[in-house]
Amino acid sequence: MKKELIFSKEEYQLRIRKTKEMMDKAGMEMLLVMDPGNMNYLTGYDGWSFYVHQGVILSLDQEKPFWFGREQDRNGARITSWLTDDQLHGYPDEYVQSRYTHTMIWLADLLGKMGLDKKTLGMEMDGYWFNARMYLTLLEKLPQATPMDGTNLVNWVKSIKSPAEIAYMRQAAQICENVMDTAVKQINVGVWEKDVAAMVAAGQIAGTDEFGGSSTALFPIMPSGQRTSTAHLTFHPDRKYQKNDVVLLELAGARHRYHAPLARTVYLGDPPDDLKKTADSVITGLRETLSFIKPGVTAEEVEEKWRLAISHTGLVKPSRVGYSYGLNYVPDWGEHTVSLRPGDKTILKPGMTLHFMPGIWLEKYGFECSEPILITENGCEKFIEFPQELICKK
Amino acid sequence: MKKELIFSKEEYQLRIRKTKEMMDKAGMEMLLVMDPGNMNYLTGYDGWSFYVHQGVILSLDQEKPFWFGREQDRNGARITSWLTDDQLHGYPDEYVQSRYTHTMIWLADLLGKMGLDKKTLGMEMDGYWFNARMYLTLLEKLPQATPMDGTNLVNWVKSIKSPAEIAYMRQAAQICENVMDTAVKQINVGVWEKDVAAMVAAGQIAGTDEFGGSSTALFPIMPSGQRTSTAHLTFHPDRKYQKNDVVLLELAGARHRYHAPLARTVYLGDPPDDLKKTADSVITGLRETLSFIKPGVTAEEVEEKWRLAISHTGLVKPSRVGYSYGLNYVPDWGEHTVSLRPGDKTILKPGMTLHFMPGIWLEKYGFECSEPILITENGCEKFIEFPQELICKK
Repeated sequence: MKKELIFSKEEYQLRIRKTKEMMDKAGMEMLLVMDPGNMNYLTGYDGWSFYVHQGVILSLDQEKPFWFGREQDRNGARITSWLTDDQLHGYPDEYVQSRYTHTMIWLADLLGKMGLDKKTLGMEMDGYWFNARMYLTLLEKLPQATPMDGTNLVNWVKSIKSPAEIAYMRQAAQICENVMDTAVKQINVGVWEKDVAAMVAAGQIAGTDEFGGSSTALFPIMPSGQRTSTAHLTFHPDRKYQKNDVVLLELAGARHRYHAPLARTVYLGDPPDDLKKTADSVITGLRETLSFIKPGVTAEEVEEKWRLAISHTGLVKPSRVGYSYGLNYVPDWGEHTVSLRPGDKTILKPGMTLHFMPGIWLEKYGFECSEPILITENGCEKFIEFPQELICKK
Repeated sequence: MKKELIFSKEEYQLRIRKTKEMMDKAGMEMLLVMDPGNMNYLTGYDGWSFYVHQGVILSLDQEKPFWFGREQDRNGARITSWLTDDQLHGYPDEYVQSRYTHTMIWLADLLGKMGLDKKTLGMEMDGYWFNARMYLTLLEKLPQATPMDGTNLVNWVKSIKSPAEIAYMRQAAQICENVMDTAVKQINVGVWEKDVAAMVAAGQIAGTDEFGGSSTALFPIMPSGQRTSTAHLTFHPDRKYQKNDVVLLELAGARHRYHAPLARTVYLGDPPDDLKKTADSVITGLRETLSFIKPGVTAEEVEEKWRLAISHTGLVKPSRVGYSYGLNYVPDWGEHTVSLRPGDKTILKPGMTLHFMPGIWLEKYGFECSEPILITENGCEKFIEFPQELICKK
């Protein structure tokens, strides 16, 4: 069986080392990683099998991590991860989504056999993929282990991207630019919303002439009309675009699960004055804030800069104006580390990637214009060059 | 703001009543539903906002459930759910993915204000959307509540589909048949895998001339070559189909989040004898098993029938041969109720929908041929008519 790795083995090993350093600092001997984005980051494993329980275990006293998952997915780990066969443990199918037994019973048993049942054990307590039942079962079956919170530990290691990762993110940005361009061109009065969404979905996967994309962690968000008054509705499957529609486009490209998100807004007709004013305010604030961002400033200072920049416009944005993003699976390309909002003291560093996303959702409609950025040595750099404007089509 | 409901208010209310009956039987006064498929089922709410914490609370002593979520998503609930504004509670953005506070603190506070903090409270303990930290926080902040396991309670109510739901599933089946047809036609030696995957993704959303589709809960699974030796890898983004490739296709259509999945296998060339033999065995077993399925038989009896039907062929399938499916979001269209495997005592009933999926993954390649079915009064009915064969293209 031929390995299909997308990074060098050395890069994976560096990630493991950094994660172990964080564990050691936290007094954590072992870490259970069940988040599929984090599993991919540490091992390369890339399959749509995260709907069943699977994970990676890192132990300070073992050089290599090991993977566990459903037996029928083990060949997937053999192909896509850098781990050797002896590090891949498959469980029998009777454990899958069973009301009679539980995968964590099997895992506790495996840890016992390996002599790993007495460690301080970090778990991704507040992640999507570690539920209450898993926690209680492990607690019961590993009475000599000491539970610890390992939420977002790997996410923080991920927050600084390597040159090889940034290269994939630049490819994702090319895909994103293409699909945004497609959407803007195809949205017209009388066109089915579903047909434009279909072209976007196709473009995300077809990628460019040189390389393909992967499915994105959020499905394209492209609401129209009253649906733009909120952040997470999408196209209507049975509606055509109408005169005077606002259309929000929050789209992404992804390359090997690395993302580039971008938001823009289209208006079909002559936009009302208050929408034009909102757009102007947001875009001015966006530009001023981007020119402020550089290593050493904190996440909350970035938000404050934005808030001051729009303070004279009467516009109020009660939600965060951006977040870290990168390698991920559904349901979120966000990394759950940095949030650009009051109280977040994270100091920005070169290699961080943020989606600056000052979305505004008013009672009748919304406006979005965002930028995915890379923190550089001296400031920040946009991944995508796409006109910052309310795009009006008549 | 205009409501955009896809079922009658009466249908939603019937679902609430059935859920409350189950709660009452279990001695559960209140239920916290955080699974987005279950939230949609009970309220209609349909947004890609489940990457932040949100839920629906049902209380036996309150006629209507209430929804809570991020404030910026409240308009989405106003538009897509049958609930009135007073039943929709938005939390401030500082709670989103925060390392300083937690949404469950906010929720516990809300329940206290409503006098709902002393109930026996069911939680979806073993679901994707209720993590260990949520559980521990609620336990701490609601010291007078009695926790109960409400895992899959709504899923079991969902397991019997109404005529209106089945109508959407038939539309999903039309979409699925179209995309399977597209994939089979487009897969040829020298074609980019990504380009066929893009056509499938587009077809899922474009739907038919009459109606559009929605994004499916699993991304199209369409591995080739050695990647077919496992269950959940997909297309290679930078590879063209090659002579003698096996290509697995596990695709779905979805209509308003209701699914129809289907698996088929393509071979590019003259298939080797062992693959032909495997295909013959699976298809014979599939047909015999489908003719056996009817109300009154149990899930494990169906699996036993399959096992006996293939016992003379030497083929062994160590994983379940099917599961219930229907309304869902990522990461799974399965409903986590019925599994066709030894030990599952569920008695099949009219209105249940199952994906009979006898996938075989061997050391070098796999073979899949599945059928989505509806349990009828006298037997079962296939949702899709697509030739059951190893599809060979030369």
